[in-house]
Amino acid sequence: MERRRAGPRLLELARVIVYRVRQIDCAGFAIETGSKETTAWENRNVRFVTYRSPSGPRAAGVRNGRYVDLNQADPQLPVSLKELLALGDASLQRAAQAIAKGSAMESANVKLLAPIPDPQKVLCIGLNYADHARESGQQPPPEPVVFNKFITAVSAHGDPIVLPRVSKEVDYEAELVVVMGRGGRYISEADAPRHIAGYCVGHDVSARDWQLRKPGGQWLLGKSFDGFAPFGPDLVTADEVGDPGKLRIQFRLNGETLQNSTTEQLIFSVPQLVAYVSQVCTLVPGDVIFTGTPPGVGAARKPPIFLKPGDVAEVEIEKLGILRNPVVAET
Amino acid sequence: MERRRAGPRLLELARVIVYRVRQIDCAGFAIETGSKETTAWENRNVRFVTYRSPSGPRAAGVRNGRYVDLNQADPQLPVSLKELLALGDASLQRAAQAIAKGSAMESANVKLLAPIPDPQKVLCIGLNYADHARESGQQPPPEPVVFNKFITAVSAHGDPIVLPRVSKEVDYEAELVVVMGRGGRYISEADAPRHIAGYCVGHDVSARDWQLRKPGGQWLLGKSFDGFAPFGPDLVTADEVGDPGKLRIQFRLNGETLQNSTTEQLIFSVPQLVAYVSQVCTLVPGDVIFTGTPPGVGAARKPPIFLKPGDVAEVEIEKLGILRNPVVAET
Repeated sequence: MERRRAGPRLLELARVIVYRVRQIDCAGFAIETGSKETTAWENRNVRFVTYRSPSGPRAAGVRNGRYVDLNQADPQLPVSLKELLALGDASLQRAAQAIAKGSAMESANVKLLAPIPDPQKVLCIGLNYADHARESGQQPPPEPVVFNKFITAVSAHGDPIVLPRVSKEVDYEAELVVVMGRGGRYISEADAPRHIAGYCVGHDVSARDWQLRKPGGQWLLGKSFDGFAPFGPDLVTADEVGDPGKLRIQFRLNGETLQNSTTEQLIFSVPQLVAYVSQVCTLVPGDVIFTGTPPGVGAARKPPIFLKPGDVAEVEIEKLGILRNPVVAET
Repeated sequence: MERRRAGPRLLELARVIVYRVRQIDCAGFAIETGSKETTAWENRNVRFVTYRSPSGPRAAGVRNGRYVDLNQADPQLPVSLKELLALGDASLQRAAQAIAKGSAMESANVKLLAPIPDPQKVLCIGLNYADHARESGQQPPPEPVVFNKFITAVSAHGDPIVLPRVSKEVDYEAELVVVMGRGGRYISEADAPRHIAGYCVGHDVSARDWQLRKPGGQWLLGKSFDGFAPFGPDLVTADEVGDPGKLRIQFRLNGETLQNSTTEQLIFSVPQLVAYVSQVCTLVPGDVIFTGTPPGVGAARKPPIFLKPGDVAEVEIEKLGILRNPVVAET
């Protein structure tokens, strides 16, 4: 408990330091001062990635398809995207400036990691598209169905989806992923948008045999094999996305479209999900929420379709991009 | 995926550095050199805690009921207990020496945190005592039932258990907690003991209404309210505990014994649990596993007993100690 009380204090301290430094140091930047009290996450319109470097994961911004290392462009900015989100709006505005001015790397030379490679929580919502609930033979639930994945399931755009040798039924699920900016507990539905940093394309890979046919009925293991939570390539800030409830979402297997819907079909909206979950736990910066999948999953087809070695899985979401992962056998 | 490959390399590098430093620097220590290849976790017989300091959580050892800060006693040792576990046996032996020689703090002046305040995973096993499965009206499961808790549920000996205002049925569960030392995937049952750093007393606090009566049947939220995973006070190393399948385990509410069993009743042994879970995910140093609870939980009683403000909850496990937490209303 003490540890958790210390966290917000340290974050607040860091936020104040960055704010003061900006006042002293940022005269040359074309950003407002005194914006600390304005609504968070405004006027940025940027895309972030995290990439692999010899010293560990580093945050970068995207400029015309190339990557600008944030901390190299502006040493006041942190190396980690999770830390940047924790610092709040002033630092995000500063990051936008760094992206505009810093030197860019050729993206072909960069190995992307998940935008947040080490979230504290990977929350997931089940049965959250009306049509998907129907295809699963279930009524739309009266409250969100919440499960999660281990952090060791997180993987990146381009990483292989490894089919575990202990499963015969690995299925796909295209999902919109929410990334928390400002943390909190008991976040209201009305306040939720101010706590959301942005969105990613996600793939909720699911071993149906482990999810649905193990004693106790808990979905955790079937959803949590290593690498079963790819998301990315970019974190697109909330302002650039606009309404997250109006985005086309598709899954393609080897080029064939197997899921095709829009987030208008969400039973529980993104703000409702944030409010619901934060009744139970304190959300922290960088936590991610997989928001559920539309109809067309493999297990519901006749005959069923499961992933096999050599497949290429693609999730595409309007305004966010394409998450592509090859499928391989476990060796 | 790339990130996870980097982790073990960095740990291995750190282990080699510590080993080399020890060869150069440890002539004065009465510990073997050349022990890098011996079985891990031998010959230590120590108890560790993590305590709150102005600079953040710090690891200490226990000597005659007082605490010795490891990094202060030996600056080569890390500040974090999780990092110490990751460094392996040589560092644990070095820590034992530091505990024997360092200056000790009065324990009354120390605020304990959970021994691992920030595990990457908090795994939990359901229905793992034959008698508890029966009292829950379930057959002993043919495979372990695995669920988990959010990291924000972790709390310490002495921290209040806060009854969430959205639950009316908060129950107790006394549990033996395993702390992973060496990580890995596909750990065999035979190898599992070499991967276990030690054990703690744990309390799997459970909001039964949220665990059992929400759509989708997922236990996660009911088990994951902030503070619902107290464990501690100490991490007792595996060699001091001996066989984890022969420990008396009790729960007392306001001094009255409501659970009283032994870990001989475990359906799946500690090594079996480690092997089972590591089929799915890579375990990392500091991961904790709550191993299930014996009969006598409040919800199974007639009339049921749920926690109420003013209660004092105590879990005691032979050789490990007593974990005590007051119960308070949410304000």
